[in-house]
Amino acid sequence: MSTLFLRTLRDDPADAEVPSHKLLVRAGYVRRAAPGVYSWLPLGLRVLRAVENVVREEMNAIGAQEILLPALLPRDPYEQTGRWTEYGDALFRLKDRKGVDMLLGPTHEELFTQLVKGEYSSYKDMPVTLYQIQTKYRDEERPRAGILRGREFVMKDSYSFDLDDDGLKASYDAHREAYQKIFARLGVKYVIVAATSGAMGGSASEEFLAESEVGEDTFVRCVESGYAANVEAVVTPPVEPIPFDGLPQAKVHDTPDAPTIDSLVDWANDALEGTYSAADTLKNVLVKVRAPGADWELLGVGVPGDREVDFKRLEASLEPAEVELLTEDDFTANPFLVKGYIGPKGLQDNEVRYLVDPRVADGTAWITGADEPNKHVVGLVAGRDFTPDGTIEAAEVRDGDASPDGKGTLVSAKGIEIGHIFQLGRKYTDAFEVDVLGETGKPVRLTMGSYGVGVSRLVAVLAEQWHDDKGLRWPREVTPFDVHLVIANKDQAAVDGAGTLAADLDAAGLEVLLDDRKASPGVKFKDAELLGMPTVVVVGRGYANGVVELRDRFTGESTEVPVADAVSAIAAAVRS
Amino acid sequence: MSTLFLRTLRDDPADAEVPSHKLLVRAGYVRRAAPGVYSWLPLGLRVLRAVENVVREEMNAIGAQEILLPALLPRDPYEQTGRWTEYGDALFRLKDRKGVDMLLGPTHEELFTQLVKGEYSSYKDMPVTLYQIQTKYRDEERPRAGILRGREFVMKDSYSFDLDDDGLKASYDAHREAYQKIFARLGVKYVIVAATSGAMGGSASEEFLAESEVGEDTFVRCVESGYAANVEAVVTPPVEPIPFDGLPQAKVHDTPDAPTIDSLVDWANDALEGTYSAADTLKNVLVKVRAPGADWELLGVGVPGDREVDFKRLEASLEPAEVELLTEDDFTANPFLVKGYIGPKGLQDNEVRYLVDPRVADGTAWITGADEPNKHVVGLVAGRDFTPDGTIEAAEVRDGDASPDGKGTLVSAKGIEIGHIFQLGRKYTDAFEVDVLGETGKPVRLTMGSYGVGVSRLVAVLAEQWHDDKGLRWPREVTPFDVHLVIANKDQAAVDGAGTLAADLDAAGLEVLLDDRKASPGVKFKDAELLGMPTVVVVGRGYANGVVELRDRFTGESTEVPVADAVSAIAAAVRS
Repeated sequence: MSTLFLRTLRDDPADAEVPSHKLLVRAGYVRRAAPGVYSWLPLGLRVLRAVENVVREEMNAIGAQEILLPALLPRDPYEQTGRWTEYGDALFRLKDRKGVDMLLGPTHEELFTQLVKGEYSSYKDMPVTLYQIQTKYRDEERPRAGILRGREFVMKDSYSFDLDDDGLKASYDAHREAYQKIFARLGVKYVIVAATSGAMGGSASEEFLAESEVGEDTFVRCVESGYAANVEAVVTPPVEPIPFDGLPQAKVHDTPDAPTIDSLVDWANDALEGTYSAADTLKNVLVKVRAPGADWELLGVGVPGDREVDFKRLEASLEPAEVELLTEDDFTANPFLVKGYIGPKGLQDNEVRYLVDPRVADGTAWITGADEPNKHVVGLVAGRDFTPDGTIEAAEVRDGDASPDGKGTLVSAKGIEIGHIFQLGRKYTDAFEVDVLGETGKPVRLTMGSYGVGVSRLVAVLAEQWHDDKGLRWPREVTPFDVHLVIANKDQAAVDGAGTLAADLDAAGLEVLLDDRKASPGVKFKDAELLGMPTVVVVGRGYANGVVELRDRFTGESTEVPVADAVSAIAAAVRS
Repeated sequence: MSTLFLRTLRDDPADAEVPSHKLLVRAGYVRRAAPGVYSWLPLGLRVLRAVENVVREEMNAIGAQEILLPALLPRDPYEQTGRWTEYGDALFRLKDRKGVDMLLGPTHEELFTQLVKGEYSSYKDMPVTLYQIQTKYRDEERPRAGILRGREFVMKDSYSFDLDDDGLKASYDAHREAYQKIFARLGVKYVIVAATSGAMGGSASEEFLAESEVGEDTFVRCVESGYAANVEAVVTPPVEPIPFDGLPQAKVHDTPDAPTIDSLVDWANDALEGTYSAADTLKNVLVKVRAPGADWELLGVGVPGDREVDFKRLEASLEPAEVELLTEDDFTANPFLVKGYIGPKGLQDNEVRYLVDPRVADGTAWITGADEPNKHVVGLVAGRDFTPDGTIEAAEVRDGDASPDGKGTLVSAKGIEIGHIFQLGRKYTDAFEVDVLGETGKPVRLTMGSYGVGVSRLVAVLAEQWHDDKGLRWPREVTPFDVHLVIANKDQAAVDGAGTLAADLDAAGLEVLLDDRKASPGVKFKDAELLGMPTVVVVGRGYANGVVELRDRFTGESTEVPVADAVSAIAAAVRS
């Protein structure tokens, strides 16, 4: 440590809000170079490499082959798949000296697909899975929390190519298991959640979320059954239809003072002498939607009045179409849309597509807008008085909602995305027409999976999940050094003894960080806690009596060990 | 090999000119993604990592500490040192989503300097050497020869920080030795040449050049003494001044038909009845020069008429000033410049700075321009009739020139730059005001060295230096696999035996590439030669008689080895 390029900081950096960011900077693991762009100092780089190695070993174990693609990429392949524009501002674009458009790769589906097309041509070559551990670039709108969400970051991305759906499923399952092993080895606490696919296209997809209060991803889980899902992926349990028999006719009422759901419920309880709640009202939200290559069109979304429309869930349900809220001009252009009083009838009379929450099942009766100012209709029955064009998952998910598996209720939690596995299907192989000669002699279009692990992000996640109020605490698989050996005794015999012990530990295959600085024991102990090696050995006062102290950074336990037994005792602790 | 992501190519790629490029593509080591941007396939990545590891080990051995800086960098530090503009079109510049200027790092002096300034503050912290093995970007005007000169490439760059010149010298020497070890371990044939510093600034500097006909760098060496230097760094041996006594007066002659050096020499031999050659004429070349922060000014460069001005040497001599040739407008604006007849007198009368080749020593007499059309002056004596403002190394260096060490003559050769070591001095520490508290309590400005190894380029260099007409041949330190084991016998016993042998070699710590493909022995042998593992083992016809064949890819020698002794014989060959 007397020569290590390291200065610990007493104070939290001004721009840091989350514990991992504060501690990784204070402990000298990383330094900021630009917003969302970080340098890795010696200790940080050791953790990063350790994470990489665990990921590499588990990828190799499933037969994935490591390659390395460039970060500086040509525009053309991304143009062919539409992602040159789809990525919007998140893509770093640049021009070379000849004015040719290039980009910094945010993910490499295009290049891997082209590569496989270039090399392989027969069913005999299949399946193949390729991966890289590589630096990626995304111009995040809000880079945050240090290396937790950076603009330059290290990812492991892999891509599987298979002849058919069964093959894709097998490649997907192999990655799923490899990821479980990776995160278990690293010591990450995580959940696997059903996910939508975001901008990646494709169908089946799951996210690995590290549980963390500072996470940006909200997910829900069912404690009873273990079900977990990204909020965007939660499916409302089906609602049984109700027979229409005996349901009263719908009736339009004047509702002069009920422009909001609350006031409408008050009006209903008063005027209809019933016991109504917001859940009895049907709220119709208008948006406009544009499918790829099509024009904007109106869409009505009906949800029970006690729930908001969750725009992210709405977007995920409509993907790959774009969604926007209506402008005043849109309302002017469509005078049948009476703000605050939009009802299913007005939409259907004007041929506006109308999708409803699954709770708006056939036979359910609703209080809703009557398409005229200050008028609502009561007892409007789905399937009798209006027929939606289908259902949509757009209503917010709330704690206490029934789990889709019917085995309990959902509660929400925060997580950090650390892995993502996708069954992409043929989106990219179609774009690049990747066929191989099939066993029957006919061409077979390959089907593809794409799988990512946030390698540099995991360093922050581990810091986030394992730190305590004194500093970092590294799981053994990723610790920068196995042992932090503190010299806390100025006697030359103790100093020499510490040197010998360090050399013996090194010879025993352990990596030792030796604190040989001219600093007080107090300063050294504080730094050892901040830096977070799991095993701390102190050569202190006891050395004269033939003992060293062995501290466990996780449990805080301290034991005295005879110097003669120190190497074996320390090795045993490290390998426990 | 039946599952390895590899397809060898029969034909050379259309865009490849040099052998390493052709072979690395044909053997499936790399693939082009964009001009000067390459993907590393499994075998190529293994070589790249092997080179990285050798570099890493030798850097660690001299106490350098590994860190990792980003490639995406802010403009500001490069603005502070002037390199944002100095780099010209070679710098990849981009804007982020907020319109902030950024760049892709071509080299990291600025960031390392800022980092050390941020962490260290005392003489007790010094010296420190930091390095990284990292992906760099330069928008080369002519990316060429595959990974030999790419626009995205891997470099090891290190930076030393010292308190004084002696410290810098020690850091520089440590790097010099480390580089010698690196290149020796890798098996590169190289020379160390004295170099100028290019855009890096600073003083002492040497280049490590791999000897290669396809190299872009020309260097000269003295076979007798071993002296070697970049052409830009060659210093002309001093010429003794000659006494003026008895030298005839200079005289202006009409030379109507002598606009060129050749015609002037003809005229002189005829009109003066002497034996003159081009070396007796003095050619004055006019350029304009702009020092940083200053205006353009004229500069006259006088060289013996038998030599051209070497513009790269001229530029190197004048650095950091810029140099340009004169335009017609410049001649119009300076009517005293009579094209073809410019002489020292006209320049000096008009206060144009005038620098001469060292061969234009005091007392040497010249035939040169008389500053009037169709007139030359004969017998113009340096130091008597004109006094240059100094000497300059701008004349071309030619085979047969005297070596600067006086021990022989120079011959030129081609090389590829694989390493470069610089004593930068305080250029960057001045720019960022990097002081530490000195031992006396006063601030000390740090002095700096910068050192680079072209890691990905070395893969091409090794391919270039070691290939033969059959394919690649890898030195043992970098070979993708220790052993290429070819199954060239369809009998199940032989196939099983090869599998067992591969497993045994693996258990003995050797990395084995097993050719288990359904292909003919001929195809497999050709691929083995193309791929270039140093040791090839063939399980072929002899297997029934209890022998396998051991081939040395370098010597071409083949020996039969009993199956029972195969592991130890192969291990011995690999470790020889």
